[in-house]
Amino acid sequence: MAIQISVCGPRNCTEEDRHHAHELGRLIAERGAVVVCGGYTGVMAAAAAGANAAGGTVVGILSRPDREGINPDLTIVIPTGIGEARNNVIVNSGDAVIVIGGSWGTLSELALAMRHGRAPVVQLGGWRLLDQQGEPVPGLKYANNPHHALELTGLFA
Amino acid sequence: MAIQISVCGPRNCTEEDRHHAHELGRLIAERGAVVVCGGYTGVMAAAAAGANAAGGTVVGILSRPDREGINPDLTIVIPTGIGEARNNVIVNSGDAVIVIGGSWGTLSELALAMRHGRAPVVQLGGWRLLDQQGEPVPGLKYANNPHHALELTGLFA
Amino acid sequence: MAIQISVCGPRNCTEEDRHHAHELGRLIAERGAVVVCGGYTGVMAAAAAGANAAGGTVVGILSRPDREGINPDLTIVIPTGIGEARNNVIVNSGDAVIVIGGSWGTLSELALAMRHGRAPVVQLGGWRLLDQQGEPVPGLKYANNPHHALELTGLFA
Amino acid sequence: MAIQISVCGPRNCTEEDRHHAHELGRLIAERGAVVVCGGYTGVMAAAAAGANAAGGTVVGILSRPDREGINPDLTIVIPTGIGEARNNVIVNSGDAVIVIGGSWGTLSELALAMRHGRAPVVQLGGWRLLDQQGEPVPGLKYANNPHHALELTGLFA
Repeated sequence: MAIQISVCGPRNCTEEDRHHAHELGRLIAERGAVVVCGGYTGVMAAAAAGANAAGGTVVGILSRPDREGINPDLTIVIPTGIGEARNNVIVNSGDAVIVIGGSWGTLSELALAMRHGRAPVVQLGGWRLLDQQGEPVPGLKYANNPHHALELTGLFA
Repeated sequence: MAIQISVCGPRNCTEEDRHHAHELGRLIAERGAVVVCGGYTGVMAAAAAGANAAGGTVVGILSRPDREGINPDLTIVIPTGIGEARNNVIVNSGDAVIVIGGSWGTLSELALAMRHGRAPVVQLGGWRLLDQQGEPVPGLKYANNPHHALELTGLFA
Repeated sequence: MAIQISVCGPRNCTEEDRHHAHELGRLIAERGAVVVCGGYTGVMAAAAAGANAAGGTVVGILSRPDREGINPDLTIVIPTGIGEARNNVIVNSGDAVIVIGGSWGTLSELALAMRHGRAPVVQLGGWRLLDQQGEPVPGLKYANNPHHALELTGLFA
Repeated sequence: MAIQISVCGPRNCTEEDRHHAHELGRLIAERGAVVVCGGYTGVMAAAAAGANAAGGTVVGILSRPDREGINPDLTIVIPTGIGEARNNVIVNSGDAVIVIGGSWGTLSELALAMRHGRAPVVQLGGWRLLDQQGEPVPGLKYANNPHHALELTGLFA
């Protein structure tokens, strides 16, 4: 069974997020791992396109019960039909979870992955989280670029 | 149909969180509204106890498919069996969502409620969220105490 | 905590199903128990109306993430947002499950309740199920009328 | 994107069910299609083994949030963590749904697939369903063997 990396990020992302996601998708595919994503636009589509262009496998875990609105680079499609609750399925499916950029949906995936606690969680760009003392909340790993993000997962040593 | 207020917060909460949750539960019940919560310990149990002591109705939306581990102050029990995906059900069920204290699970509920976008979301204590420019992410309302939290929902004017 | 009875049945039901559901809702409410249902039309609406008319509590567990299309007799509304997966939540929430009439959605609730195996499951009308030898599949209880259905739950002796 | 066939059936299946599932998995893989299944034992394991032996791709959609108890022939693993609600995800993921053998969980998948209504549903062995007039409930297709089941999907003409 191949390593599975969940890549999360906003539908409405920045150009930098999109660039990061595309390169990350490519790097994951080149290492023989599978990209798991939400299957729609923005960061999800960029990661899928990067992986697909490198001959990789991409799993799209959809909120809808059908295929409406999916991006064209998915290998396997899972139309869960459970709405935003599918974010749990995405983060549970990764041997590591990499979160690119900031949005409420993306933050929910980051938080659910940390709550789940079974896989390393790496953040590339996006929002910052401070505890009640104003210190960064521990446990998250911060990457500077897609290579660094993969390195921080500890899965490709 | 009564107003429903979802109260979210950690199992392992601070004494201040617990005190806030208990008072908030009481205030919600006194206004004739229903408390919706996760049904277990910590903030969930304190909010339920506060509401129950004031004669209110408390709905516990559980992650498990059975009643194991529930607090003793629930009026209605919903054992979803869908694990952490039940956080979506909790936030969808509130005419407002009030989040007390900080944990990854709690942050996921805050994020899902903001993503949902249909109800006001109020934070009382807990973690702080900054965007990529270091500014507070807009949209969240910050309360100083339980009275203030209810006021910020705009539902009891 | 009151006894909770899940009442399941088609949106497009027969007049007899509707009559049965209304009477069953009333009987449940008169015994001080709570009706849990899917919150929409047909059998769900009839059971809710019967319970509400008798002063009872009705919980509607919705497939949608909002309140669109709900019937007017719900006391508590749970907009799960998880689509048809909410059928699991309905059957898990009953101390007994009573299924009225026949449809594919209704059959899925009957099957999930039997699979769950934690509560008695009673069928009133609807489809019949035969095993590979042509014998009725054991485990289900068949009621002749709403009184009989409640009696077969064994909860109101 | 390859055709995806969801294969459902009991953990505790008959020898004939197991034989059917293994052959069906092989036939699906030989046609270049993907097997989607529940990822555990019985019919799920047999279908996965048949497909894997023929070099095919197998997606396991698990009820648990982790990989405990999976069979050894999965290519992609989706640990949903949503319990039995994952049956909805399995049936939504198939361009056709083929149900082998009889159990309450299996019946729930058959019923959810028919309720969903977006893909052909084929039954091979298992329980029989009669409406209130004692006639077979229309809509289901009955296969005599794995070849026939694939033919009845209408996807490999």
